[in-house]
Amino acid sequence: MLDRPATSIRFRRLLLTGAAGNLGSELRPRLKAYCDTLRVSHRSDDIAPAGPGEEIAVADLADKAAVMAMVEGVDAIVHLGGVSTEQSWEAIRDANISGMVHLYEAARLHGVRRIVFASSNHVTGFYRQDQVVSSRDPVRPDGFYGLSKAFGENLAQLYWDRHGLETVSVRIGSSFAAPRDRRMLATWMSYDDTERLVAAALGAPVVGHSIIYGMSDNATTWWDNTPARHIGYRPQDSSEVFRAEVEARQQHVDRGDPATLHQGGMFVRTGPFFDEAV
Amino acid sequence: MLDRPATSIRFRRLLLTGAAGNLGSELRPRLKAYCDTLRVSHRSDDIAPAGPGEEIAVADLADKAAVMAMVEGVDAIVHLGGVSTEQSWEAIRDANISGMVHLYEAARLHGVRRIVFASSNHVTGFYRQDQVVSSRDPVRPDGFYGLSKAFGENLAQLYWDRHGLETVSVRIGSSFAAPRDRRMLATWMSYDDTERLVAAALGAPVVGHSIIYGMSDNATTWWDNTPARHIGYRPQDSSEVFRAEVEARQQHVDRGDPATLHQGGMFVRTGPFFDEAV
Amino acid sequence: MLDRPATSIRFRRLLLTGAAGNLGSELRPRLKAYCDTLRVSHRSDDIAPAGPGEEIAVADLADKAAVMAMVEGVDAIVHLGGVSTEQSWEAIRDANISGMVHLYEAARLHGVRRIVFASSNHVTGFYRQDQVVSSRDPVRPDGFYGLSKAFGENLAQLYWDRHGLETVSVRIGSSFAAPRDRRMLATWMSYDDTERLVAAALGAPVVGHSIIYGMSDNATTWWDNTPARHIGYRPQDSSEVFRAEVEARQQHVDRGDPATLHQGGMFVRTGPFFDEAV
Amino acid sequence: MLDRPATSIRFRRLLLTGAAGNLGSELRPRLKAYCDTLRVSHRSDDIAPAGPGEEIAVADLADKAAVMAMVEGVDAIVHLGGVSTEQSWEAIRDANISGMVHLYEAARLHGVRRIVFASSNHVTGFYRQDQVVSSRDPVRPDGFYGLSKAFGENLAQLYWDRHGLETVSVRIGSSFAAPRDRRMLATWMSYDDTERLVAAALGAPVVGHSIIYGMSDNATTWWDNTPARHIGYRPQDSSEVFRAEVEARQQHVDRGDPATLHQGGMFVRTGPFFDEAV
Amino acid sequence: MLDRPATSIRFRRLLLTGAAGNLGSELRPRLKAYCDTLRVSHRSDDIAPAGPGEEIAVADLADKAAVMAMVEGVDAIVHLGGVSTEQSWEAIRDANISGMVHLYEAARLHGVRRIVFASSNHVTGFYRQDQVVSSRDPVRPDGFYGLSKAFGENLAQLYWDRHGLETVSVRIGSSFAAPRDRRMLATWMSYDDTERLVAAALGAPVVGHSIIYGMSDNATTWWDNTPARHIGYRPQDSSEVFRAEVEARQQHVDRGDPATLHQGGMFVRTGPFFDEAV
Amino acid sequence: MLDRPATSIRFRRLLLTGAAGNLGSELRPRLKAYCDTLRVSHRSDDIAPAGPGEEIAVADLADKAAVMAMVEGVDAIVHLGGVSTEQSWEAIRDANISGMVHLYEAARLHGVRRIVFASSNHVTGFYRQDQVVSSRDPVRPDGFYGLSKAFGENLAQLYWDRHGLETVSVRIGSSFAAPRDRRMLATWMSYDDTERLVAAALGAPVVGHSIIYGMSDNATTWWDNTPARHIGYRPQDSSEVFRAEVEARQQHVDRGDPATLHQGGMFVRTGPFFDEAV
Repeated sequence: MLDRPATSIRFRRLLLTGAAGNLGSELRPRLKAYCDTLRVSHRSDDIAPAGPGEEIAVADLADKAAVMAMVEGVDAIVHLGGVSTEQSWEAIRDANISGMVHLYEAARLHGVRRIVFASSNHVTGFYRQDQVVSSRDPVRPDGFYGLSKAFGENLAQLYWDRHGLETVSVRIGSSFAAPRDRRMLATWMSYDDTERLVAAALGAPVVGHSIIYGMSDNATTWWDNTPARHIGYRPQDSSEVFRAEVEARQQHVDRGDPATLHQGGMFVRTGPFFDEAV
Repeated sequence: MLDRPATSIRFRRLLLTGAAGNLGSELRPRLKAYCDTLRVSHRSDDIAPAGPGEEIAVADLADKAAVMAMVEGVDAIVHLGGVSTEQSWEAIRDANISGMVHLYEAARLHGVRRIVFASSNHVTGFYRQDQVVSSRDPVRPDGFYGLSKAFGENLAQLYWDRHGLETVSVRIGSSFAAPRDRRMLATWMSYDDTERLVAAALGAPVVGHSIIYGMSDNATTWWDNTPARHIGYRPQDSSEVFRAEVEARQQHVDRGDPATLHQGGMFVRTGPFFDEAV
Repeated sequence: MLDRPATSIRFRRLLLTGAAGNLGSELRPRLKAYCDTLRVSHRSDDIAPAGPGEEIAVADLADKAAVMAMVEGVDAIVHLGGVSTEQSWEAIRDANISGMVHLYEAARLHGVRRIVFASSNHVTGFYRQDQVVSSRDPVRPDGFYGLSKAFGENLAQLYWDRHGLETVSVRIGSSFAAPRDRRMLATWMSYDDTERLVAAALGAPVVGHSIIYGMSDNATTWWDNTPARHIGYRPQDSSEVFRAEVEARQQHVDRGDPATLHQGGMFVRTGPFFDEAV
Repeated sequence: MLDRPATSIRFRRLLLTGAAGNLGSELRPRLKAYCDTLRVSHRSDDIAPAGPGEEIAVADLADKAAVMAMVEGVDAIVHLGGVSTEQSWEAIRDANISGMVHLYEAARLHGVRRIVFASSNHVTGFYRQDQVVSSRDPVRPDGFYGLSKAFGENLAQLYWDRHGLETVSVRIGSSFAAPRDRRMLATWMSYDDTERLVAAALGAPVVGHSIIYGMSDNATTWWDNTPARHIGYRPQDSSEVFRAEVEARQQHVDRGDPATLHQGGMFVRTGPFFDEAV
Repeated sequence: MLDRPATSIRFRRLLLTGAAGNLGSELRPRLKAYCDTLRVSHRSDDIAPAGPGEEIAVADLADKAAVMAMVEGVDAIVHLGGVSTEQSWEAIRDANISGMVHLYEAARLHGVRRIVFASSNHVTGFYRQDQVVSSRDPVRPDGFYGLSKAFGENLAQLYWDRHGLETVSVRIGSSFAAPRDRRMLATWMSYDDTERLVAAALGAPVVGHSIIYGMSDNATTWWDNTPARHIGYRPQDSSEVFRAEVEARQQHVDRGDPATLHQGGMFVRTGPFFDEAV
Repeated sequence: MLDRPATSIRFRRLLLTGAAGNLGSELRPRLKAYCDTLRVSHRSDDIAPAGPGEEIAVADLADKAAVMAMVEGVDAIVHLGGVSTEQSWEAIRDANISGMVHLYEAARLHGVRRIVFASSNHVTGFYRQDQVVSSRDPVRPDGFYGLSKAFGENLAQLYWDRHGLETVSVRIGSSFAAPRDRRMLATWMSYDDTERLVAAALGAPVVGHSIIYGMSDNATTWWDNTPARHIGYRPQDSSEVFRAEVEARQQHVDRGDPATLHQGGMFVRTGPFFDEAV
């Protein structure tokens, strides 16, 4: 947790979806600094009970009515919910595609002003690791998961263009305690930087629909965030302090492996396409 | 119908989906020139019976197994099927999102080499009518329908990047006998030009995943097809011959109406969003 | 004059400024096809008397009140008025800078919807003749005249952004009966094409503030009008029919002369800068 | 004042116009480090008397002869003079448009080599606050003031292209002791950074006509100065230290207000257009 | 041969190198229309004797003194000489690399004003056939031959930047009587269009160093010549008239073959790299 | 030397060519940290004897067989060898053009995976000092030396596209102990930063063919390395600490001198073109 809030903008009631997931658990205590009440939601009641200033909302994103209830009364949403790995098409469709439609319709009907949407670097995972990409480049998803996140971004664009609902789509790299392999030297975003980015996305006066890659100030960089500087995110951490250790552990890479060559890493060759079931 | 085929490339068996729709009915007799057998499919059996060189395949796109059967044995697909107007989210999701996944999985498993996908100008419908857009610009869908077509294009990109399945995504403007209003002076594509475009997309030696706007050689143009010239489409018709009549009928436009200002026309303000049902 | 109007859109009352100038005299009879009443204005009463369907308005552009009266009651304006050559700074300032402010304020206050503004290729006259320029490139005026036209375009942009007043700024090349020298093989716009362009600019449903280079379909081209295709202008003439004669007359060019090297031609080295008066 | 000069390049005689204005008063003592003699000018004699190494020149920019005298004998000019807010068209025309022509003609005739021109972010004030703009993007002035600054930049370009007179046009954001509101978290430039920028602009060996946005190293950034890195300006300050306080004071913004949405802030909706006088 | 010259600009003495090659033999009679004397050169005396208005110059490009003599007294050069297929590195180095240096030094020393250089589409042969490329994209040569042509273009750029010697580099596609395969439907340039292009390149008043792709007005197009429109080349022929026949002959392409996928065709996998000799 | 290696990736055997040159001598001791054995080569035996972990290879780059032997058995190459100043065409051709072909053929045949190629800023030396250039801009070499380096980059691109051999082309600015003049305030790269860059180029998992400008983190910057951020180079030094001294020594520059105006400095007007020998 940062020693002081990254922004002084405070919300009355903030909704955090996916609050029991890996990243959700990390952000849950941090987001309290930015609101009076933090509503934390998860798809089941397998979530830590409400602490002070918290309230729990259980909702399956595929359930339109439950989502409508979950969203009622909140000012802004940090949407981490849904499937975050390559899973079956049906799981991804229900949580990440229909779920996003439910969430945005609910937000529109309840007058929510802004959503911070956890998109993913897998939206552009089929670019090579020797390319530097910005949000202005065409998407190249690396699987059904990335495809669903591209859908989410386009939905956010639609709700901005048509309904004036603002979104910051964060193409999260790898938000972990530390980079786990050489790929993550590029994609890593520290938890503190993740808080900084979410806070900036919540606090900026005007965002329309903005897309930003979620990464720390890493020396190795695949993404150019120039078009998103208006959000005010300045990372303070860097994967560089882990380089020696990570490289020592992984001296060799297999350049014949698509996972080595592409930004999406393992995602470019995993996932339950239908043939597994045929 | 053109007096001779636009390409000499012939397929053994070609699948035309959506064959009983407006555009499908127009293309059905034309596509026979490009294949030995034309398999025509529709979501119900409300379709004209098979003529010489034709075979019928009834399949609901939302039905994975039916789609698998429909695709078996074809060399290439002209995919017009699915919802082509702004309808309920569920209808669009089933036919245009899940339906596309079904179609591409089936095509991949059955070794189909190329798909001509009827995408739509509504993928970029929220650009203004005083802007000239190309396929390199970010999408700005104007509703659930446009959103589903953007999903389809991204899916096509994924199957090219990952599986080598080729697609030409055609962002069809207005394929009708004649332009009906001043907007269509820009968006109109004659039936003959539609055939030319589909033939070029089928016959080009290499297309990867290419995106092209489907329009005739209209004087008023919102779309720049420079990045798609490798497909070899050269429109021969123009909406200009209809200008005097169309403008005489519609002297005035309401510049306060979003439908006047944006490329998507009426689509930018129609459609059964959930609130109609709330 | 075209054998039939280039657009069927008709205005009740159209204002043509600079109507006694070279180009104004050519357009005056042509514009009658596009309106019930053509108000023709000039800075003095040295102008041919009103014919059928015409009315005369004498106004010096530097005279705010006179401009206000001139504009009252018109639907749209074709603004050719002002200085059209390199003259003294004061003359250009009064007619082309203050005059433009007067005109746009008058148009705003009187509710005029659209202005076709005769800008000039001299706005970008300092690009070289071996460069192809579009309206998206930075301006490089070649003198006070070009500078004043750049001012006019920026003013038009301001009135669109702030007041919703639409303008098509036409960067006219050389609108003459025929190209006079090798430079004009690139810059020439026939009178018929000039009418086509003005008609398209008047008739297009939505233009915001659009910038277009005014030229015929010349083989030699310095300007890329791709960003302005939405206006619907398609030139039908070409300087090519004059090439043999023009080149025979002017076999040699002096490549040491800035006028040879730059698009602005003679303008890049003429004009009464103050030193002439010092 | 910096503890040592930002550049070692010294001028014999430097002219500072607008020396009695807000920013002029701040720069006046700072610029002494960069010249033997600092000529300070103002439009009236309401200016602090000459100190050591200073000389006073009173000149109204609208007065051609006075400007000619003011410029005589100087090596370089830091031009802050003229109107710096939205005022009447006539005031802006005289000081910022005619005044600029007078200044540049005088500089050309007297052989001045370089001018640092205080342009303004209001040249592009009609871009939205969720856009990142560079000097390569088309101008979108937000009023007569911004329009006059765009004129000044184009004039500077003309004098470089035609006469070899060099200019750095600085699109100043908000040069104040501290940011006053949330907009200024993006636009703020500290006085020290302002000195750094002016010094870099004066000292760089070659600048032609370069445009740079004047801002500190703020986390929230609307402007991309990549094309101007050759000038050598590296800001050392940041608005970030003021964020907590500024945001606490201004928790809410009115997103229905054009001043909130656009980079120009209040300028996009203020100013004595003629209707106030009608 | 065209029924009349494509330009009226005439040269006193024009040099055509490579005059006994395939394309040289075709251009030799055509170029007489553009000069008083046509000097035709070849690397050996195996060349048809001089006709009226012709003179012969035998010179090996690798022989500096011979090249110097060959160039003496000419006004302009059409340089087709050198190796035009993938050959040994030494052959390409001597004729296309050293030979180009010899030619340009000779041209500079003898005051030649302009060279039309037969570059090649193989300079960008490693782009895919589903990409549209312009001269502004980075080069991607497909072998030693393409590499040598890229060298030649860079040399031409150097001589323009440094010595004011003008060049039009023509990236010739396939200049044959008719397209021979499906690749040539994109790359074909008729002999008449070749003459038109060479004439335009010789006759344009100012070219600096310009790069243009040499192709007819083919429906299938890989190259965007927008940046070269100032040269004034307008192709009149099209490969489309050969499409039916060419496609009928070559129904199938092998998409696993790099020669099918890339613009360079067979060149991307042929050529005597050293290993053949190891 | 850095206090610890910039990357933990180690090679079994690394080849350093040009090891006895200025920069080679500086890098020779530094590169030992990145390999078990450092093979150091020079064109003659005028090179310091092998120290621990070193082996010597003498080879003239123009000698194909010698180069083949030199490359045998190495994992990667840092290629500084060849001519590094403007010399006679023959010297540059033999060492930098034929020499590069020999080196890449040898590397391909011996299975070398990666080359770090010392290219030069003189590849783009004819851009002006008021321009900011990236590797995506067309090359503009300033002499035969720059031309040979452009050739080397294109060769590297060919070997990547065709043979999968990876290269990082480093367009070295000025790698010296300190900047020597005002031009070097922009172009300087400290020896430590040079080591950082070479280490990053060797250690990055995937580079394809990447081009990066070699410079420290200088305030004055002509080059935009955004497209090369994936390499992971972060300079730590800056020329700024030398500014006061350098500028004091060189108060004045001659703006009439091409060497002042262009990025290549003196190179734009030096070099033994043939006329010196005529």
